[in-house]
This record gives sequence, C-alpha cells and structure tokens, in this order.
Amino acid sequence: MSQRRFKPITLRSAAVKEKGPVKITVIDYDENNFQQKEVTSIEECSVYRDKPTVTWINVEGVHRPDVLEKIANCFGLHPLILEDISDVDQRPKIEDMDDYLFIVFKMLSYNFEYAEIEIEQISLVFGKNFVISFQETVGDIFDPIRERLKAGKGRIRKMGADYLAYSLMDATVDNYFKILDEFGEKIEFLEDEIISRPDPLVLKEIYHLKREIIFLRRIILPLREMLRLLDRSESGLIKEPIRIYFRDIHDHVIQVIDSIEVFREMLTGMIEIYLSSLSKRMNEIMKVLTVIATIFMPLTFVTGVFGMNFRYIPGLERAWGFPIAILIMFGIGVYMLRYFRKNKWI
Amino acid sequence: MSQRRFKPITLRSAAVKEKGPVKITVIDYDENNFQQKEVTSIEECSVYRDKPTVTWINVEGVHRPDVLEKIANCFGLHPLILEDISDVDQRPKIEDMDDYLFIVFKMLSYNFEYAEIEIEQISLVFGKNFVISFQETVGDIFDPIRERLKAGKGRIRKMGADYLAYSLMDATVDNYFKILDEFGEKIEFLEDEIISRPDPLVLKEIYHLKREIIFLRRIILPLREMLRLLDRSESGLIKEPIRIYFRDIHDHVIQVIDSIEVFREMLTGMIEIYLSSLSKRMNEIMKVLTVIATIFMPLTFVTGVFGMNFRYIPGLERAWGFPIAILIMFGIGVYMLRYFRKNKWI
Amino acid sequence: MSQRRFKPITLRSAAVKEKGPVKITVIDYDENNFQQKEVTSIEECSVYRDKPTVTWINVEGVHRPDVLEKIANCFGLHPLILEDISDVDQRPKIEDMDDYLFIVFKMLSYNFEYAEIEIEQISLVFGKNFVISFQETVGDIFDPIRERLKAGKGRIRKMGADYLAYSLMDATVDNYFKILDEFGEKIEFLEDEIISRPDPLVLKEIYHLKREIIFLRRIILPLREMLRLLDRSESGLIKEPIRIYFRDIHDHVIQVIDSIEVFREMLTGMIEIYLSSLSKRMNEIMKVLTVIATIFMPLTFVTGVFGMNFRYIPGLERAWGFPIAILIMFGIGVYMLRYFRKNKWI
Amino acid sequence: MSQRRFKPITLRSAAVKEKGPVKITVIDYDENNFQQKEVTSIEECSVYRDKPTVTWINVEGVHRPDVLEKIANCFGLHPLILEDISDVDQRPKIEDMDDYLFIVFKMLSYNFEYAEIEIEQISLVFGKNFVISFQETVGDIFDPIRERLKAGKGRIRKMGADYLAYSLMDATVDNYFKILDEFGEKIEFLEDEIISRPDPLVLKEIYHLKREIIFLRRIILPLREMLRLLDRSESGLIKEPIRIYFRDIHDHVIQVIDSIEVFREMLTGMIEIYLSSLSKRMNEIMKVLTVIATIFMPLTFVTGVFGMNFRYIPGLERAWGFPIAILIMFGIGVYMLRYFRKNKWI
Amino acid sequence: MSQRRFKPITLRSAAVKEKGPVKITVIDYDENNFQQKEVTSIEECSVYRDKPTVTWINVEGVHRPDVLEKIANCFGLHPLILEDISDVDQRPKIEDMDDYLFIVFKMLSYNFEYAEIEIEQISLVFGKNFVISFQETVGDIFDPIRERLKAGKGRIRKMGADYLAYSLMDATVDNYFKILDEFGEKIEFLEDEIISRPDPLVLKEIYHLKREIIFLRRIILPLREMLRLLDRSESGLIKEPIRIYFRDIHDHVIQVIDSIEVFREMLTGMIEIYLSSLSKRMNEIMKVLTVIATIFMPLTFVTGVFGMNFRYIPGLERAWGFPIAILIMFGIGVYMLRYFRKNKWI
Repeated sequence: MSQRRFKPITLRSAAVKEKGPVKITVIDYDENNFQQKEVTSIEECSVYRDKPTVTWINVEGVHRPDVLEKIANCFGLHPLILEDISDVDQRPKIEDMDDYLFIVFKMLSYNFEYAEIEIEQISLVFGKNFVISFQETVGDIFDPIRERLKAGKGRIRKMGADYLAYSLMDATVDNYFKILDEFGEKIEFLEDEIISRPDPLVLKEIYHLKREIIFLRRIILPLREMLRLLDRSESGLIKEPIRIYFRDIHDHVIQVIDSIEVFREMLTGMIEIYLSSLSKRMNEIMKVLTVIATIFMPLTFVTGVFGMNFRYIPGLERAWGFPIAILIMFGIGVYMLRYFRKNKWI
Repeated sequence: MSQRRFKPITLRSAAVKEKGPVKITVIDYDENNFQQKEVTSIEECSVYRDKPTVTWINVEGVHRPDVLEKIANCFGLHPLILEDISDVDQRPKIEDMDDYLFIVFKMLSYNFEYAEIEIEQISLVFGKNFVISFQETVGDIFDPIRERLKAGKGRIRKMGADYLAYSLMDATVDNYFKILDEFGEKIEFLEDEIISRPDPLVLKEIYHLKREIIFLRRIILPLREMLRLLDRSESGLIKEPIRIYFRDIHDHVIQVIDSIEVFREMLTGMIEIYLSSLSKRMNEIMKVLTVIATIFMPLTFVTGVFGMNFRYIPGLERAWGFPIAILIMFGIGVYMLRYFRKNKWI
Repeated sequence: MSQRRFKPITLRSAAVKEKGPVKITVIDYDENNFQQKEVTSIEECSVYRDKPTVTWINVEGVHRPDVLEKIANCFGLHPLILEDISDVDQRPKIEDMDDYLFIVFKMLSYNFEYAEIEIEQISLVFGKNFVISFQETVGDIFDPIRERLKAGKGRIRKMGADYLAYSLMDATVDNYFKILDEFGEKIEFLEDEIISRPDPLVLKEIYHLKREIIFLRRIILPLREMLRLLDRSESGLIKEPIRIYFRDIHDHVIQVIDSIEVFREMLTGMIEIYLSSLSKRMNEIMKVLTVIATIFMPLTFVTGVFGMNFRYIPGLERAWGFPIAILIMFGIGVYMLRYFRKNKWI
Repeated sequence: MSQRRFKPITLRSAAVKEKGPVKITVIDYDENNFQQKEVTSIEECSVYRDKPTVTWINVEGVHRPDVLEKIANCFGLHPLILEDISDVDQRPKIEDMDDYLFIVFKMLSYNFEYAEIEIEQISLVFGKNFVISFQETVGDIFDPIRERLKAGKGRIRKMGADYLAYSLMDATVDNYFKILDEFGEKIEFLEDEIISRPDPLVLKEIYHLKREIIFLRRIILPLREMLRLLDRSESGLIKEPIRIYFRDIHDHVIQVIDSIEVFREMLTGMIEIYLSSLSKRMNEIMKVLTVIATIFMPLTFVTGVFGMNFRYIPGLERAWGFPIAILIMFGIGVYMLRYFRKNKWI
Repeated sequence: MSQRRFKPITLRSAAVKEKGPVKITVIDYDENNFQQKEVTSIEECSVYRDKPTVTWINVEGVHRPDVLEKIANCFGLHPLILEDISDVDQRPKIEDMDDYLFIVFKMLSYNFEYAEIEIEQISLVFGKNFVISFQETVGDIFDPIRERLKAGKGRIRKMGADYLAYSLMDATVDNYFKILDEFGEKIEFLEDEIISRPDPLVLKEIYHLKREIIFLRRIILPLREMLRLLDRSESGLIKEPIRIYFRDIHDHVIQVIDSIEVFREMLTGMIEIYLSSLSKRMNEIMKVLTVIATIFMPLTFVTGVFGMNFRYIPGLERAWGFPIAILIMFGIGVYMLRYFRKNKWI
C-alpha cells in the first residue's frame, strides 16, 4: 500500500523539514499523581496499559517505522492504522476500532520567517485510559497542556483520556484562528493594493492566496465531517459529559470554514474589481487619445488647406489671412474642448 | 479554550463600543402578579429558581466574568455555556442541556448616525420556569416585551417561560426586516446610480454591500438550522402549543434568507450591468475617434497632395483650382458622414 | 408579531390595489343539494360546521380584522393562523393543525393593461367538511369551480372537502402556465432583439426579466416543498383516493419550476451573447479605424515628403513628377486594400 | 385539469406531426403460444385480462379520447392516468396504482432530414399479465421486440409482463445513445469551427446547442429519479429477478446524464474560447494600428518640419538636404520596426 | 441490450489497441500451498469452485464471448453481468448478487510515448473462495500481487478472497496517484507558460487539460459512491476485519477526487489570468499608441501652421523663426513626456 500523493505547492509540509531522532514523552497521571519521563522507544507498555491512571504518550516524529511498530504492537494497533500514522498525507478522518479511536487531523502553524504555513499531521489514538499522539516533527504546541497537567489546575487532571484527547484537538483547532488572522490581514492589504494600484503582480498574488485558501479548505473541511461522525458515534470511549466539549470543537471548525468561505468570496470579488479597473483604465486611455485626435485632426486639416500650393486661395495674400486662420483654428479647438467637457470626458 | 476569531470588517460589533457596568433586571410574574427590580449581581437565586412563577433575568453586558459566574453557579450552567455567553463571536446555535436550553443568536440594529449595522450577541438560557437573557450592551430592544408583561395584556402573562423565550427571539427576528429594508433601499439607490452614472466608486460600494450581505447571510443562515433543530428536538421545555410559535419564527427566518439571496443576485446583476456599460462606453468612445479619423485623414491627404511642391500639378495655376479642391474635400466629408449615419454610428 | 417585510419591486402585489368591502360567499352542497348565498359577515357558523354537507366559505378581502376574527372564532382557528391569513407576504406553506389543514400559496394573474403580474395570496383552511378560502381582493378565478358545483357535473359534488381544496389549488396552479407563456413570449422577443439590435435598453430589460423570474421562482419553489409535505403528511383530512390528485398538482409545480430554470438559463445566455456582441462590434469599429489609418498615414507621409521645401528634390521640376507620385500613392493604397482583403478585414 | 404548457422551441414534439387514425396491436403470448392481431378499438378485454398469458397492447396515437377511454374502462385505469396519457407534455414519472404501474417517459429519435430531434411520449401501464404501451404517433421502435417475441428466441417469451415492460424501456433508452452520438459529432464540429473561424454565427449555434442540451437534460433527468423509485418500490408487479434489469436501465440513464453534463461543460468552454479569441483578435488589430501610427506619425512630423515656410531652415538650400532628411526618416522607420520586432509585436 | 456509447475524445481507451488472444491465469492458494498455471479456456471449474483454497482467475481480454461465457456458466454468473464485463464503457459500480459481488472500475495508466492516459476497465467477480478479474488487454499491473502470493510473504496468503479482491482494487487506485502527478506537473508547467507567454495555444492546451480532468472525474467519482455502498452493504462475502481495508481505499479515492477538484480550480484560475493578461496587454498597446499620437499630433499641427502659404506669417522671414518653432515643438514634446511619466504611462 505504498502511497504516492499529489503534493500541493503553496503550503509547505512540515515533514520535509527535518528528520531528526524520534522523541517520546510519557506522562502518566490521575487526580493525585503526575509523572513525566522521556524515552526513545517503548518496549514494555503493559505498565501503562493496565494501570487505571491516564497515560499520554506523545511521539514527535513518525519517520522511524521500528519505533512506531513497537508502540503499535504494544497497544495492539491495526497495521493500517500504523500506515496511516506514518503516511503524512492523510485526509482528516476518524476510525472507530472498538478498543480505541483513531483520529487524524492537521496542525497549521504560521512561519513568520518564510511567510509560510507549515502543515503537520497529528494522529491521535485513544482508548480507555491512554492517549497516544503522533506529531511529524518536534513541536511545542502541546506544551501548555503539559503545563496544565503538571500544575494540576482546572479540570484536566480529574478527567479521563477522552478529555485529554479533546484538549489536544482543541489546542490545534484554536491555532487555526491565528492562521485565519494572518490570511485576513493579507487579504485586507491586497484589497487596498488592488484598488489603489491595479497591477498584474497583485493579481498573481491574489490567485496565489486563493489557491492557498482552497488548499486550506481541503484540509479543514473533512474535519467538520469527522467531528460530526464523532458526535454521532456510539463509541463508549467518549463519555457523555465529554461529548459537549467535542461539540464545542465542532462549532469552532464550522466557524473556521465560514471564514474561509468569506475569504474566498472576497478574493473572487477582488479579481472582478481588478478586471473592471482594467476596463475602466482602458476607457480613460482611449478618452485621452480620442480627445487629442479629435482636436488636432481638424486643425491639421485646416493648416493643410492653407498649405496647398494653389495660386489663388482667398486670404493668402492679405495681412489678416493668417490671424483669421489662427482664430478659426482656435475656435475649433475651444469648441471641441467645451464639447468634451460637456460630455464629461475631461 | 481562549478563542481568537477572525473579525469581519464591515459590520461593526456592538461589543467594542462600551464597557460600562453590568445591568441586571429581574422580572418575576405569573398570571396575576408582576414584580420588577434592578440588581447589579445575582447572589441568591434559589428564590426565583424554586418559585412556580416565571422569572426573567435580563443581563446587559457580558464582560464581567464574576457576575456571569455567579449566575452560572446559581442556575447550574455548564462551564462551556458560560464561555459561549462571554465569547461574543459565537455562531447562532442551540444546545440542549436537559435541564435548560441554551440558544445563541445575533441581534442586528441599524445605526443611522454612522450608517452601520451593529451586531449584538443575544444568549438565552431557559428552563422550566426561568429565562435568562444576555445582551452584549445596554439596549432597549426588549422594552416592548417588558411593557406587555407589565400591562398584563395579551397572552404573555398566561404563558410559561417557553413563550417568553419565543417573544424575545421574535422581537429580534422582527428587527431583521428593518435591516433588510435599509439594504433594499440602498440597493435600489445604487441600481439607479450604476445605470445613470457608471462610476468605479459606485462599483466599490456595490462590492462593499455585497460583502456585508454575505456576512449577514453568515449570521442568519445558522439560525434556520438552529430553529429546525429546535422544532425537531424532543425537549420537554417547549410545550406542544408553543412549538407553532417557534415554527412561525422559523418561517420568518426563511423569508429573511430568501430576501438576502435576492439581494445577492441583484448585486451580482448590477456588477454585470456595470461591466457591460463600460464596454458599451468604450464602443462609443471608439466610434467618435473612428468617425473623426475616417473623415479627416482622407481630407488631410488631399491637402497634402496639393501641398506637394511639384512644379506641374494640374489645377494649381487655375482660379477654379482651390474651389474645386475644397468641393472635392467637402464631398468626401459629406459622403463619410452619410455612410456613418446609414450605419447608425452617429 | 407585527411584520415588516422587504417588498419586491417588479411584480406588483394585488393587495395594494383596492381596499373595498369584504365579500363572503357561502356555498353548501352535497351530492343532491346545492345552496349559495352572499353574506358580509359570519356570525353563527354552527349551522355549517355541524352539518354533514360540504361548506365552502370564500372570503374576498383580508383587510378587515373584525370579519376575519369572527370566522376564526367560529371555526376555532389558532391566532397565528389568523395573523398569517391577514399578512399577505407569507411564503407558501402548510400547517397541520390536527382539526384542520392550513395552506398558503400565491395566485398569479397577468394584467395585460399594465403588463404586470399581480400576485395575490390565497389561504385555504379545510377541515372534515368545510373549506374556507381567503383571497386578497375580489377576483373571479374560482368562478369555474362554482359553476361546476352548481351544475353538479363531474365528480366534484360527490367528493368531500379535500377534493374541493384540491380543485381550488389546481385552478391556481393551472394559471401559472399562462404566466409562463407570457414570459416565454417575452423572452423569445428579447432574444430576437438582442441579436439584431444589441442595445443597452434591451440588456436592462433582460435583467429586469431575470429578476422577475428569480422572484417568481421564490414564490413557487416553496410550493413544491409544501406539496411534498402534504403528500407525506399523515393527516386523515385528505382521504387516500384524493392524494393522487394532490400528487398531480405536485407534478405540475415541478414542471413550472423546470420551465423557470430553463428561462433563467436562457436569460443568462442572452446576457453573454450581448456582451460578446459588444466585443465583436468593437472589433469591427477598430478594424475600420485601422484600415483607414493604415491606408492614409503612409499616403499622407508621401505627400509630406514632396511638400518639403528642399530646393533639390528629385522629380519636383519634371512634368512626370506629379503623375508618378500619384501613381506610387495609388499603388500603396491598392496594395494595402488587397492586404486587408486577403486577411478578411474588409 | 386542462393544462397549457410552455412549449420548448428547439426540439420538435412528434405529436404535432400527424393526426392519423389510432393503430392498436394486440399481442398475446406465453412460452409456447404467440398470437398477434390489429384492431382499431378495444371493446372487450376480459378475454386478455383474465388469461394467464401475457398480453401486450400497443396503442399508436393518443389523440382519440373515445379509444383511450374504452381501454381505460376495460383495464380499470384511473381518470388521472388517462389524462396523463393523452397530455403529451408530461414529465417522466412513475405512479404505483397497486393493481398496475404507470410509467411515462420520452422517446427521442433523430430526424436526419430536418436535423431535428423528435420527442415522443411513451406511456406504459403494466399489471400482472398485461402491458399497455401508448405512443404518440405510428412508429417502429418496438418492431425488434415484436420480432423477438414472434421468433420466440431468447428469454423474452419465458418471462412475464415485467420483462416485457423492461424490454420496451430498454429499447427507448438505448436510442438515447444514438442521439448523444449526433450531439457529440456536432459539438466536435463546432469546436473545430470556433477555433479556426471565430464567427458570431458559430457562437449562436453553440448557444442553440446548449439550450437543446439543457432541454434534453430536463427530459432525461427525471428518468433517473423515476428508476430509483422503481428500484425501491415494493410493488409486487416487478418480480425480484427482473429488478436487476431495471437497475441496468438505471445505469444507462446515469451514463447518458453524465455525457450530457460533459457536453454542457464543453459548450461552456467553447464560449469562453470564443470570447478570449475576440480579445486576442482585438489585440492584433490594435497592434497593426499602433505599429503603423507609431512609424508614420514621427515621419510625417519630420516632413512637416521641412515643409514649413521659414526662409532660413538649415539644409533646405543644400543639395544633400533632401537625401539626409530621407535618411533620417528611413532611420527612424527602421529603428521603430526593430523596436517592435524586439517586443514581438510583428 | 446492444449499447452504443458516446466515446470521449481525449483519453484513449486501451481497448482499441489490440485484439490478441485471451490470456487466462489461474492461481490457487492457501496459507501453505501455491499453484499457478496458464490456460486459454476454462472448461471445468468445479475443481476450483468447491475447493476451500482461494482461486484467482485473471482474464486478460474481454473480446471473446465464447471464453467469457464458459467462465460465466462455470461460476453461474448472470447474463447481465456477462454483458457488463464485455461492454468496456461501464460506469464504476457494484452489484451484489448474493452469491458473489460484481465490481467494475477503471484502471488508468500513463503512456509516456504518446503522452496519453490509457483507460482500461477492470471487472471483479468475487465469491466465497474465488476471485475472477477481467482486464481489457494484457497488462502487468497485478504482477506485484502475484509475486507477493508466490513468495507467501505478508498477510495475503493467510487471508481470503475478499482480501485478494481488496489488493487488486488497491493496486489500481494507487496507480491513480501516479496519473495525478503527471497532471500536476503539466498544470504547473502550463501555469508558468500562461504568465510568461500568454498565448492562445497555451489557452487551448489548458482547455484540453480541463476537459481531460472533467473526464477523469467522471470516471473516478462513481467509485466513491461504489465504495460507500460496499462499506454499507450487508454482504457476508466481505468479512468484518477486511472492511477496514476497503474503507482505506475509500479514503484514497476521496483524496484523488479532492486533488481533481483542486486541479479544476487551478485551471479555471489560469484561464482567468490569461484573459486578464489579454486586457492588460491591450492597455499597454493602447498606451503606446496614445503616447505617440498625443506627442506627434500637436507637433505636426505646429509644422502645419508654419507650412501655410500666407504671405504674412510672423517670424517666417526672420532668422530666428525656425529655431524658435523647433524650440516650441521641443517644449511641447518634453511637456507631454513629463505629463505621461507623471501619470505612470511610460
């Protein structure tokens, strides 16, 4: 099942960046106890699996099949789940495996240095009393949750694995709003640009942004469906009081998708404004040309008339000939200008 | 669950405006009694909670967590509900919490001074015999309902908390029609403008309006879904005879959405008319240029011919040379003009 | 529940026209008997309500609340139903009130004098053995049904209230096809116009028509949904053998909507043809300009050359100078014309 | 229920063509026997109705109400069914009348002489052991089926009325593919035309074709829905092993609709290509004009300079004056041409 | 049921290529045994049908009805299934025949030589312990699966016929990603072209590609529906643990469709960029023309003034007349150029 995927161009996958060692953090807690350690491989998990405490195993890096396989064997993960975890081009989805739920979704983080959005795949496996989270690279997005667990403040230590899974998803989805803010600012910037300076480069950037938006939508849209399925699933792994929390994430995702749709419509509108400003500009250029031609062509014709070499042309020999010709031409010019002014051409 | 949202640009959120103190109005009534008082904080609510009378607590301002928390504790509201109330960027939704229904929607009011639509979030929590309404700011939209309650006229005093909740929603949705009227008038105005004076500024305003319409739609569309869910919900909190009232609001919301769709189509049509009028205008400019050039270029050529310095050019030496040349040119000009008239160019 | 609605512009509501007195016609019939009388108010209806015969009360005019209320009290109509009847901006809908069905829909009639479509709201309330129909104004659309009832021909006298309700709806929907014919003819006319005479006025009329079509669709589309609900409803008020008749109306409504969609697509196509004809026309204007300029600019240059005042220009002094210059210019002109003819410019 | 329909323009209804006498063919068969006779009216049908053999009554012509009514009475058809049969503007639909199924759909046949598609309505009524088919005009589309029945080859004689009904529908749907081939060829032809010779007449023909396609789609789309309903219907008239055959027709209809969608997209693409070729052409015309003007305007200016009547203009009196002026002008011309060549204008 | 289909133009059907003999490969295996032989016809299949081992019969070539019929008789395939197998224009679909499942889908392979995508229809019939696969031509796409079976590595030998069927589908769908990569590269190439060299030929190629994409979508879209139906089917032929594998293919197909949608949007965007670049280019051409005309028309007018043959024109007789005239003209030219520069025309 080796999978080759179409790689999108504009949003950078975080996976390409680095291939360092896999970092595994094991946190084990219940309401009263908290224990955290870092390991490089999971050999025996029976310790965690059978304890009533909640165990959270965070795996940073999915490029080492041997490490993943040990975890999979330990927790009895299906081979296909394992493949999905290591294939970082998954579409967000949920798989109910009875003993555990498998959830894949994307984390987005804005890289200010390169003005790029980094996409990272997060896989969650959570069962009765454990959560295993897989990140593509070493990251710090889950640090605040670790802090909350350590401090034992709030609800989190009193709740089970399902609440922990919720917290991890919530942290990720909350991050989407930051990305949207970046987009929103850029769109506003481009909107000012397109009106004040209708340039093909701005147009190109709008198309670039539009494509990024389409791509973003593609990543987030299935999340909505996934959370709908989660809400309707009859899995006992998510306890009834926790369901409202997942529904809350669902609301946020719908809000994100709403904003994306608005962005798309705004970008489409901007393209239309650009095109109409091109037409408008053309009209103005043509007006200038027409005004100039309409004034000077008759005048030049008049000079031509008096430039003909006929021997007998009235007025040529008279002193007032030239001034009168000039006056006539001046009159024509003034009339033309007034005509154009009346028609609001100039 | 700190939430950062993408802030829309064109419709102003009422929340930004003022951060005064929280105003709490408690109204307690049944068919025979009516009592109203203003408090600044709810300490003990057991009085209202356990009485068989209907209690309506209207909270104006959601920026004081301490005040909200007291109310939440008092009526046993879920922490997430509390968060949703104080986060004024919620999407309209309904949450059935068994003991109470939680409804969020948006109030729109047109600010004539700034020509802005102010969006205010209204949250309703209603249980067996109480309704708690949360407004973002101090407002007077619910005054007529208060008056009706006080006067004891009509059905309202005889009905329960569900009818009160309906009345609050109905007052809000009725307000939407006023906003639509504003939009309708502005669209009609712009329509006249775009035909009589096809200006890029008008186009920009059309796009602005279109975006406002899209945003409005985004606010109202989920309301339809929410009311559909409400209609199908099996919550016992809405008694059977009251359901038809909520269905009535549902009908109104569908009507509002219909109008919004028509507005969108009208605006799109106006943009197309603008673009076609640009093309039309261009044709007219080009016609003027072409007519002028087509008349004067041959004439100027004729003057050029007789302006050449050849010694022997027929007619140069004759008295009738010049008049004939003028006649020829005049003939060419007249012919051209008639040709253009025949082809309906001028 | 005072409702302010957005009033559409192009189709005229019949309600605005006249506010005469309310005309009430009561018809009471069974297979063997037929009785008809005109009253101005319904005081006691127990006579009709409890008789096994079918009673049809036709109310022409909904602007007198007192008259409506008497009827409502008499037949036990819900206050909201009463409001819906008198509010003539209702969306077509059905409301199953157990004891009776309430149906609202729109009648369309083409006013040849003003070339306007008049929209009139028809409300039907029908129970076990009565039908109450409400029209906005005095109209004669139901006359043929009255005639059929009087004559006692066909099925109608043998059937119950449900068949009468069907007959009233059917008469209304049949009228839609007449309206479609009007639209069809106008669209065909405009289609010929837009190709033979691409004028902005025609474009404006197309947009006007398109908006009317959109508005028409808005009125008829909910009818389809309403009839689908009626077909699925489990109300015992429509007997099994009558259901196929309502399904027949459903088919007609779908056919009307199909035609409306085709009209929309045709109008959109006509707009595109108009725009492309503008571009085409522009091309032709530019061709004329270019042909003229391309012929006369080189010629005028030649005359300019020989018009220079150099003392020594070859040929100036010779008798054959001028004829040769003319020949050269003539040759250039002919060559240009042939070049354009070859390229199919002229 | 008199129905006036909007008559489409481009596809000709076969019904208008001829109004000859009604031709009725009765075929009665089982596995071993086959009997065929032609009658002009069905008086007693009890013979056929009660026999266990399959009876197929093919009625060619639906314009004689008396003939239809006799058949209806004989087989107990509902009055509305009768109306639907004689009204040839029906939308394809299915009606389950318990004792029999009523199916309406359209037959399309390409008339090579007039390059028109003839639409004919086929109505099928089939019960336990009879099929009655109604065609609008005398036609030979069902001849192959008659032949197969006569010859007794294949499955057809061994199967019941449901298989016969399937065979009739299948013959009709198979014909659709021929029509699609005609469209496909015309579209390919127009596609070559639009690129090689972008003419408004071709554009008009594309729009004409597009409208025909829309109309075709309108005829065939409801067939899909109808076949879906047929598949899900619980009517016992279609035996389980025959259902797969109707599903096969369903597949074909979906294929036809797919092709129609592709045709639509192709035609839309062709219109866009036409419009862009207009713009492209305009650019080329403008280039010619600009090149000519840009070369000759400066040159004519130079001739004008030396054509001025100042007494003292350098070079006028010298022998080398004219050649140098010509050289300068030649140089300007060459420079301009090279500039345009460099910018790929010529 | 002879079927004539509309043949698409741009993607080549593999079927046309060659009509060689039919090649049949029979593989029979269980966990411990593996047997492979090539035959040219299946006479007795009872051997394979009744054995508990899994039998895979791969038929390369569907143009010999006699060969297909033997197989059909042997495994009891329905006549319609047989028709579907030999008709290579099927839409992807699934047919549950209780004893066996019948699946049709398309294999795509990129022919580098002709830059064509070859479409081949794959039909799968699989029952309790057999899989029969039909390819249109001799191909090697299933070789890796044969190798895996021979080697006995992995799960495949331990699983049943359903897993084999899955493997065959999976190999086909995996190939789609390769095709997408080809498209992706071509689109990227064209995107660079359209911006750097906006040529009608590139536009034509974009339209060609777009149509290919539409066609591709048409082939793959029904696959999604088919896999959804497979997932929901209650056929016992797919064992519960194997369903997740088919769901995995479903995910891949959705991913492919997503990419196709993105491609379509990209191509549409490219067409818009092309059209706007045409307008932009037009503006630039017009600017050049206008600049030239606006500079030289006034200058030529001035020369014309002094070229008139009036006897008394001030300055003509003076030595400084010509230099001053030249200076005036130079001044006008410089002024015009500065004006254009200020307005960013040049």
